[in-house]
Amino acid sequence: MPIIAVIGDGQLARMMHTEAIELGLAPRVLAGSEDASAAQVFGDVRIGDYTDLDDLKAVVDGAAAATFDHEHVPNEYLDELIAAGVSVQPQPRALIYAQDKLEQRRKMKEIGAPVPEFAPIESAADAGEFFDFVSGEMCLKATRGGYDGHGVWFPDSREEAETLVTDLLDKGTPLYAERKVDFVRELSAMVARTPSGEVQAWPVVESRQRDGICVEAIAPAPGMSDENAEYCRELAVKIATELDVTGVLAVELFAAGGEITVNELAMRPHNTGHWTQDGCVTSQFEQHLRAVLDWPLGSVETTAPYTVMVNTLGADTEPSEPMEERVKEVMRRYPDAKVHLYGKGHRPGRKMGHVNIAGDDLDTVLERATAAADIIVNGAGAAE
Amino acid sequence: MPIIAVIGDGQLARMMHTEAIELGLAPRVLAGSEDASAAQVFGDVRIGDYTDLDDLKAVVDGAAAATFDHEHVPNEYLDELIAAGVSVQPQPRALIYAQDKLEQRRKMKEIGAPVPEFAPIESAADAGEFFDFVSGEMCLKATRGGYDGHGVWFPDSREEAETLVTDLLDKGTPLYAERKVDFVRELSAMVARTPSGEVQAWPVVESRQRDGICVEAIAPAPGMSDENAEYCRELAVKIATELDVTGVLAVELFAAGGEITVNELAMRPHNTGHWTQDGCVTSQFEQHLRAVLDWPLGSVETTAPYTVMVNTLGADTEPSEPMEERVKEVMRRYPDAKVHLYGKGHRPGRKMGHVNIAGDDLDTVLERATAAADIIVNGAGAAE
Repeated sequence: MPIIAVIGDGQLARMMHTEAIELGLAPRVLAGSEDASAAQVFGDVRIGDYTDLDDLKAVVDGAAAATFDHEHVPNEYLDELIAAGVSVQPQPRALIYAQDKLEQRRKMKEIGAPVPEFAPIESAADAGEFFDFVSGEMCLKATRGGYDGHGVWFPDSREEAETLVTDLLDKGTPLYAERKVDFVRELSAMVARTPSGEVQAWPVVESRQRDGICVEAIAPAPGMSDENAEYCRELAVKIATELDVTGVLAVELFAAGGEITVNELAMRPHNTGHWTQDGCVTSQFEQHLRAVLDWPLGSVETTAPYTVMVNTLGADTEPSEPMEERVKEVMRRYPDAKVHLYGKGHRPGRKMGHVNIAGDDLDTVLERATAAADIIVNGAGAAE
Repeated sequence: MPIIAVIGDGQLARMMHTEAIELGLAPRVLAGSEDASAAQVFGDVRIGDYTDLDDLKAVVDGAAAATFDHEHVPNEYLDELIAAGVSVQPQPRALIYAQDKLEQRRKMKEIGAPVPEFAPIESAADAGEFFDFVSGEMCLKATRGGYDGHGVWFPDSREEAETLVTDLLDKGTPLYAERKVDFVRELSAMVARTPSGEVQAWPVVESRQRDGICVEAIAPAPGMSDENAEYCRELAVKIATELDVTGVLAVELFAAGGEITVNELAMRPHNTGHWTQDGCVTSQFEQHLRAVLDWPLGSVETTAPYTVMVNTLGADTEPSEPMEERVKEVMRRYPDAKVHLYGKGHRPGRKMGHVNIAGDDLDTVLERATAAADIIVNGAGAAE
């Protein structure tokens, strides 16, 4: 059975590993250190640097496919691997749109996907002009490297926009701006696509954020019309196809009533897809592996009316109760809770794990999953 | 988070590993060789011999609990580990009833569990006497070491019984005999129990055998009255409790109409529980880990009306089609099939993996799972 090389050592690689084992694959990981989340559990661990071409060559040696748990491997190295005959999935020609938000905006516009008005910002003058153009409803973004709320600014005045841009450009941060979207909620439309072109789209999810970080996901997104859900799924399929994405693609969307706008793209399993582990016939991790190997894709049928995923983000101060005791307390109170932990030490705000609960009644499931995650984050005492 | 030491390197250990990872545990395995099913995928592999006390001591060092994927570790070594403070689960006082079938029969009788008439066989004379006593409906069994149809004989005459017993006793095989059960079907009642005494019982399963090897399991057992199912579950709970079993216990049962007889006990995850991976909130592998750690147990609710598991046993001759192509063909035809492979090379009759399919209609699910497994066993051509 084929070797699958995963570049990147976080929880996404870790959760690919468990699915790879069940499928009988031979999974191998390129990790930055022995104690990284994925390196703790893979059988075949190569310690190295994903920005070092020799390390990349070593981990993909003999692999049927190479894939990622992030989008930060230098594209020129990936091109070299591809030239040497390695099946790199997704490929740089797709990845570029997950790496560079301005390129993404341009591409979305080109293929007719809904995006807010936007413009590259190369000077303070550009910033001032755009601020006026959108009547102050301006969102400034770093074109590269932003995640979980980093690299996004909302200047309140033309002057603030100009000063901010001057500072950021001085620091070498490439920028663009777009009209701030006055959204009601965030959605995520996830699909998987194979190099042969097969695509499967999961139900659309509502994703709730706090400080720019995903805190929970509800599948399927409650109160959505079938028509609207189908539109989002078709939009994600179209983006995957037009951009030649392979593997899993998450299309994060803003929804203002019935109006949908593309926010970000991620070309890998995504936080808003963790619910599929316990609420869907085929999880995003299994599907990603099948997709990058160009294997037929699995069913995306749900196994319960609702599944809720709540992240367990490191509390400001670590609870005195050890993690094991917190997990046991969750299990005691919520026998239906599926606890997934990433083997990470405590750090405030850090994604350390998540809890999935599936069931028939959304309010009940949401309440239970939220309370279960709160025990893991804050300890049992805090939840009394 | 705790280290869990798994002694034994087969597919049961391998599948415990995937669940241990998701729970954030630190799993460690004692394996006979680097290429064993579990050793291929664990991050922390100790190569050694489970009949060597030093190897056992090394693998349990620092572990919160030690458990098994088979029942063959010498009990005197387990007693030494326990004396040294290691949490060995299950303990020898329970394991003895999975190791020695005569002891099991005696214990079942003692606690009032239904077993066929039986007797120890220590001579040809014992054999002849028992043969007559049961009017020739005699089943002769090795008290230890039998599995998957090995160690079981059905003599057709008093003379054959006597000759067989003489031969076997000469070879040093300890024996007992019981009345052959004229069963209609085999069932499996599985439970998990913690050292603290919490017990959870899964739905009762119908298990279909060929040549003494489990080939498929249907959950829940079709056509069973609620009363009968409840009786089997309560019987398994009683056995787990009376024998002080910890971890997963499989009680294999013979059913002749409404009459139930205990066949064998296994004190670990069991082939007839593989369906729980894709048909139940808590799989037998996760539940086993929780149980041996004395953590609260998970929900045993099913996620579909029916789940069917079909083993993929090595064909008499290995198909020319590579395994990867066979798996892809299954995925192409059956997107709802969950393929689990154990990383084992081909050998006729060998348990190399299994396929689970869940759904609403039993006939459909059974047909699909059987056809999917057949492709893995024999290749796509054979299934046309």
